[in-house]
Amino acid sequence: MILEPELTWTGARFERGVQIAIENGVITDVGQLGHNDAQKLKRRALLPGFISAHSHAFQRALRGKGETFPEGAGSFWSWREAMYALVQQLDADRFYDAVRATFAEMLAAGITTVGEFHYLHHSPGGNDHLFDEIVLRAAKDAGIRMVLLLTYYKTGGIGQPLAPAQQRFSTQSLPDFWRQVDRLDADHLGIAAHSIRGVPLDEIAPLYDEARKRGMVMHMHVEEQRREIDECRTAYGAMPLQLLNERLSSCEGFTAVHATHSDPEEMGRFLDRGGNVCITPLTEGNLGDGIPDLSALRAPSLGTDSNARISMIEEMRWLEYGQRWKSETRGVFRGAAPLLQAATANGARSLGIDAGAIEKGKLADFVAIDLDARAIRDVDESQLLEGLVFGGGDDVVAEVWVSGRPARRTSSSGGKPPR
Amino acid sequence: MILEPELTWTGARFERGVQIAIENGVITDVGQLGHNDAQKLKRRALLPGFISAHSHAFQRALRGKGETFPEGAGSFWSWREAMYALVQQLDADRFYDAVRATFAEMLAAGITTVGEFHYLHHSPGGNDHLFDEIVLRAAKDAGIRMVLLLTYYKTGGIGQPLAPAQQRFSTQSLPDFWRQVDRLDADHLGIAAHSIRGVPLDEIAPLYDEARKRGMVMHMHVEEQRREIDECRTAYGAMPLQLLNERLSSCEGFTAVHATHSDPEEMGRFLDRGGNVCITPLTEGNLGDGIPDLSALRAPSLGTDSNARISMIEEMRWLEYGQRWKSETRGVFRGAAPLLQAATANGARSLGIDAGAIEKGKLADFVAIDLDARAIRDVDESQLLEGLVFGGGDDVVAEVWVSGRPARRTSSSGGKPPR
Repeated sequence: MILEPELTWTGARFERGVQIAIENGVITDVGQLGHNDAQKLKRRALLPGFISAHSHAFQRALRGKGETFPEGAGSFWSWREAMYALVQQLDADRFYDAVRATFAEMLAAGITTVGEFHYLHHSPGGNDHLFDEIVLRAAKDAGIRMVLLLTYYKTGGIGQPLAPAQQRFSTQSLPDFWRQVDRLDADHLGIAAHSIRGVPLDEIAPLYDEARKRGMVMHMHVEEQRREIDECRTAYGAMPLQLLNERLSSCEGFTAVHATHSDPEEMGRFLDRGGNVCITPLTEGNLGDGIPDLSALRAPSLGTDSNARISMIEEMRWLEYGQRWKSETRGVFRGAAPLLQAATANGARSLGIDAGAIEKGKLADFVAIDLDARAIRDVDESQLLEGLVFGGGDDVVAEVWVSGRPARRTSSSGGKPPR
Repeated sequence: MILEPELTWTGARFERGVQIAIENGVITDVGQLGHNDAQKLKRRALLPGFISAHSHAFQRALRGKGETFPEGAGSFWSWREAMYALVQQLDADRFYDAVRATFAEMLAAGITTVGEFHYLHHSPGGNDHLFDEIVLRAAKDAGIRMVLLLTYYKTGGIGQPLAPAQQRFSTQSLPDFWRQVDRLDADHLGIAAHSIRGVPLDEIAPLYDEARKRGMVMHMHVEEQRREIDECRTAYGAMPLQLLNERLSSCEGFTAVHATHSDPEEMGRFLDRGGNVCITPLTEGNLGDGIPDLSALRAPSLGTDSNARISMIEEMRWLEYGQRWKSETRGVFRGAAPLLQAATANGARSLGIDAGAIEKGKLADFVAIDLDARAIRDVDESQLLEGLVFGGGDDVVAEVWVSGRPARRTSSSGGKPPR
């Protein structure tokens, strides 16, 4: 198959007349190929599909919940109570419906790959890992590419047993965990350690070493909330990122999610050792985490995290705006191209997949932008990406391809046909 | 005319079966009226139309511009240079097209009233106030309700003459300014003093007194950028808000726009004296202004300001998220209802119009939300507003009424018929 969009993002700019050859879901050639049988995509600008590198799909079912504050202010921790209450309600069917709806909404917003940081493993009262199978099935049914980050979760706090509400997240031994990894039939599989709260320090490095041996990526929630950092300092005498820098044999293939309160110097060390950082602006805003200091960071990935709102365009914009607010300067990430990279190539690196760019050899995952969309139709072609990132909404997304196949996708307004 | 939406926002919650009677563009009755000839709005939730209390419509033509940073960081002031360069290009026709496109995009996003803080008065090289007429015509042609805030702009900085790029903003005498106010044929007219940079301190109180005498509101940019505050301190020995508190006979009908770096105590005094504050999160994020301390403020209005992006739903969300980021707590505005009020009733108060609520006697300006929209269709009715404010995009907006008449409105994706 040959696609020929009106405009194609080739990494640094939009180009006209570019053809993209696709075989078996992979881009086999890109350029002025001169094919006569290309499928022309009129009034479309083609971007690499967006990549949400950090998601808890089931949490979308919380949308609108936990947002009233009769007592005044709430916190991350009171929100977590609402999330645990949701978990109580999720049996297998409701879980499937919830995560499938999330994946469908992601596709509608141009997200072609999701990194699913999956810790809700078990049926109510069980220890069956049934929900690992369900999330795999839901992604397949929805037609989204999912990197399942199977999550190790052992403690309810540092040195604490799991609370009753956390029992369904439980993984209690490394050998059992790896057996479950082996059991799963997934196209893309990685692992996660939930957090310094959820995993004993001594088990983090062994998890990482085994993941590296298997060529898998590993993710971990790091330094999102001050309370967990204080508890970590008390227990281990250092902040989580410092512990990772000291304990991990390297940080290649490791993604620290959030890094909201991280020390810039420690983050620099982590990045120098090959680590990745994932930021989730909409969720970190919703949860009142704070704005990270990203002065040392130039290539974060982005995640929709709690999925309270699903919009990678809004995530890109507010990644930059948060930094502008904090620094009182403009152009912290130096423009729209690095932000698009955060939403595409950086996510691919974080998830260990060959995607995130319209280049030979990459997975054929695309999002097509409607050049007639009101928000951008009168923006100069030379500033189209800037207009899109800073001025667009998800209604600019016209079509989506995963592995070269058009995604089964309905418009954002219910059951009406795709626009 | 009688409307009967499936759900109607009656101020504190959504109610079913409510009918709204409308005559001559005004709501004459609301409740379980029992009319048989009501126009049913199936699968629609009706809200008061959104009110953007602070806009510079022409700046939308900057969308995508001024967002590249070859030298590293930019600033508000480098952005202002890009804006002045745009002004150079705007003759009468281009200005009309630019502002009309803005107003059309606002309607598509559910904005029924705009407070247009209008300072680009003159044709290139002229002193003709032609652009005042054009902005009035464009709003009328687009079908949006506009409160024209005719802006007094005399100095290029405190004690400085206007720069060449500012000549087309020029108003040089109070009597001439009021003659121009009298000359304009507008349904809703107010005034603005541009800023402490643009108006000599001694002329601000006289402007306010005359506005009050005429029953007009007055707006002013206040404490957006640290540099203007420093310059004000140097020149006048105090910050702008303190000067207003000292000099104005009252603050009723006065709106301070931004208040980004305001002292909370001074803001408390300003509010106690009847003042309003307007916040513009998307623009203040884009310009790197900083996050205001709104701990003393519970009823801000919202504005789309530079219109780099037009979305009141996103403005509502990020008004709250900015405060969550800053305070590291959740629920600073105590939920979605106060945020909706910021986007409706508080804007109406700031602009001096009887709108912003679905109540007897208010202007019949509405926005209808599509209950089948993907982002909200599975949210519980009791949490619908929260789902909308924190989870929705503008594609939830289905129809819009201004003065009881459906707005001439096309969908966000170009020339296709309304959804």
